Amino acid sequence: MFFNVKTTEEVLELVQGFQTVGEESVPLGKAFGRVLSKEIVSPEDLPGFPRTSVDGYAIKAKDSFGAAESLPALLEIVGEVGMGQVPAMTVAAGQAVRISTGGMVPRGADAVVMVEYCHLMDQTTLEVSRATSPQENVIQPDDDFKKGATVLPKAWRLRSQDVGVLAGLGVTEVAVHRKPRVAIISTGDEVVPVQEKPKPGQVRDINTYTLSAFCTQQGAEPVPLGLCRDDFEQLRKILLKGLETADTAWISGGSSVGTRDLTLKVFESIEGTELLVHGISISPGKPTIIARKGATAIFGLPGHTASAMVVAEVFLTPFLARLGGERAFSGNAQNRVSAKLSRNIESASGRDDFIRVRLIRKDGEWIAEPIFGKSGLISTLVEADGLLRIDRNTEGLYQGQEVEVMRFKTA
Amino acid sequence: MFFNVKTTEEVLELVQGFQTVGEESVPLGKAFGRVLSKEIVSPEDLPGFPRTSVDGYAIKAKDSFGAAESLPALLEIVGEVGMGQVPAMTVAAGQAVRISTGGMVPRGADAVVMVEYCHLMDQTTLEVSRATSPQENVIQPDDDFKKGATVLPKAWRLRSQDVGVLAGLGVTEVAVHRKPRVAIISTGDEVVPVQEKPKPGQVRDINTYTLSAFCTQQGAEPVPLGLCRDDFEQLRKILLKGLETADTAWISGGSSVGTRDLTLKVFESIEGTELLVHGISISPGKPTIIARKGATAIFGLPGHTASAMVVAEVFLTPFLARLGGERAFSGNAQNRVSAKLSRNIESASGRDDFIRVRLIRKDGEWIAEPIFGKSGLISTLVEADGLLRIDRNTEGLYQGQEVEVMRFKTA
Repeated sequence: MFFNVKTTEEVLELVQGFQTVGEESVPLGKAFGRVLSKEIVSPEDLPGFPRTSVDGYAIKAKDSFGAAESLPALLEIVGEVGMGQVPAMTVAAGQAVRISTGGMVPRGADAVVMVEYCHLMDQTTLEVSRATSPQENVIQPDDDFKKGATVLPKAWRLRSQDVGVLAGLGVTEVAVHRKPRVAIISTGDEVVPVQEKPKPGQVRDINTYTLSAFCTQQGAEPVPLGLCRDDFEQLRKILLKGLETADTAWISGGSSVGTRDLTLKVFESIEGTELLVHGISISPGKPTIIARKGATAIFGLPGHTASAMVVAEVFLTPFLARLGGERAFSGNAQNRVSAKLSRNIESASGRDDFIRVRLIRKDGEWIAEPIFGKSGLISTLVEADGLLRIDRNTEGLYQGQEVEVMRFKTA
Repeated sequence: MFFNVKTTEEVLELVQGFQTVGEESVPLGKAFGRVLSKEIVSPEDLPGFPRTSVDGYAIKAKDSFGAAESLPALLEIVGEVGMGQVPAMTVAAGQAVRISTGGMVPRGADAVVMVEYCHLMDQTTLEVSRATSPQENVIQPDDDFKKGATVLPKAWRLRSQDVGVLAGLGVTEVAVHRKPRVAIISTGDEVVPVQEKPKPGQVRDINTYTLSAFCTQQGAEPVPLGLCRDDFEQLRKILLKGLETADTAWISGGSSVGTRDLTLKVFESIEGTELLVHGISISPGKPTIIARKGATAIFGLPGHTASAMVVAEVFLTPFLARLGGERAFSGNAQNRVSAKLSRNIESASGRDDFIRVRLIRKDGEWIAEPIFGKSGLISTLVEADGLLRIDRNTEGLYQGQEVEVMRFKTA
């Protein structure tokens, strides 16, 4: 068993070994925040026709060559392009056609001169006071996307602009990964449902709510299975149910040796279960157990909410990204911010310390202020904006040192 | 009209002048990501009883004074605390009681010595090899929260740990602000629904999808009212419907002077409407119109998706935060990242330029790489990770210069 105490890096690598969930198709209006299961290839040229990006006049560029404020070019206005219309006219030398932003550039024209450089002499005579280059202010039919070009890669989490691009390409149904389903089980004889008034010695079930919200935040679907006593049969039954209905099962509770042993015994009693991790050399969060039943990961998380949250931030974020098919670690990397440390911190060697910090904006930079407090308090988590890792080979960090903070996500 | 061209700062201040929407009550399981409309005050002491944060033995601290590896203190084990139970025994001098993490510290004991420093001589005799201070490893009844203390401030957006704390306090229903409802209208004779194959000269309705996803991302509720032709009566009717059903109305389209004029005319035709902004001195995004009808803000956004998105990121993010009751700008500030510029950028003075940038992680720091491309392209938005502002009083930025990037949110 002792061999199974792993380092942060070992566990991070291990969670990347689990399988990504399957696919489903969602309508474009529901695709925001989902992860592409296939790359998106442009089904057509976009915009598909020569389009102007300004208000002005479509002309032959060479008709404007040499034009200046003092020596304007004179052109004949022969019509106007209607929005959404294919212009009927062809622009010949010496001619100009009125066009609005987004309009289709008529045949014969190879540039659009901005209205700011135009002056109407009369209804049909235009003065152009600046030279315009060929193709100036004209978007070519395949400037945005060429038919067959990769628009978005596989494993990409869709942002609002990405959804917009899919709309532009007419992708009304999007192939995405299912949201990973996470069975959440809270254990502990001292834990009562949130609705109940705890008696002395009892506490309310915090972890079901914290971990469910964490799953939602990470784009996974929480399946809370409720509270379980410290009872072998009951825990085994509820875990088996979780393994049947979800893509991973998380048991929280068992900060005490007794409950931890019980969780282990339950893992071992389920056929085909392999214990992968029995303790991680981190603080807080050491008493974490990870097992595998077939392709499914089972986590035994510490009962202390603060410890469970550290394990969630550090390991379950990339784990859910993996399950959900998201490009490895992208979410994690995105959430890092450089800050200056407000004071010295000591650290025990041989384990990675994850220190809760407050982030304070001062003179255009972030200051990371460590939050200390008794282990087991939940209030410190509320005050914190993120976590600071002190590597196990480091004995401490100095005031003023540049550090990288893993910032908590909001929503 | 010309007086109404405003600066970035003027518009940012102006959008803070609108009213926050009302409240509603949501069950705790749905509260993640919502904004508190009232501060949360602790209804009780938490944990409410003296609780141990370690596995070990509850003792009188003074019984361990002077204890060391070479000179252990000997104590009599008189029982064990059951999880979730009020211990029946009282710890007297010379006595020890077995206790697990989270258990209630029995009367008479004032410290818990960790199991690591204990050795069982026999079933009832304990060797303690280290001195323990009074209160060591004991969480006091009000250590987490004192009854009446502020737990979370008003206007706070709930993260997963905040939801956990509410669970701990037994808050099963949470008073939050409603999600602001945003009526979204797309205009333009050249725009066709996403399901349709555009003819030459036509494009699909991108903005309805982009802006709807943007609203979802910001915690608002999009109310897409669909596509509208460049027609006074039709636009007026659909806008009136939007004003009836939503907390704000956004019309996108009208990059061309003609459509812009039409949107303005419609605003002016609605009784009690006051034009606040007619153009913002930014690029892209200049042709933005803001009006007020009573307490409701109406936005006329540029038709170019890229321009509309810049206006959304810069102005509609804090606007929606304001409407949704979130602490001013917190979301915005959170989204900034310091980076080094990869190359020189020139900028016209007299306007703020918002440059799309790619963020690249290199040697532990962020590099901001500007993305240039023809105005009106949507592909550049997909390549970008955020926006870089070049102030109107700055003529450009230099390669290697430290800049602040407004990073796009993912989900």
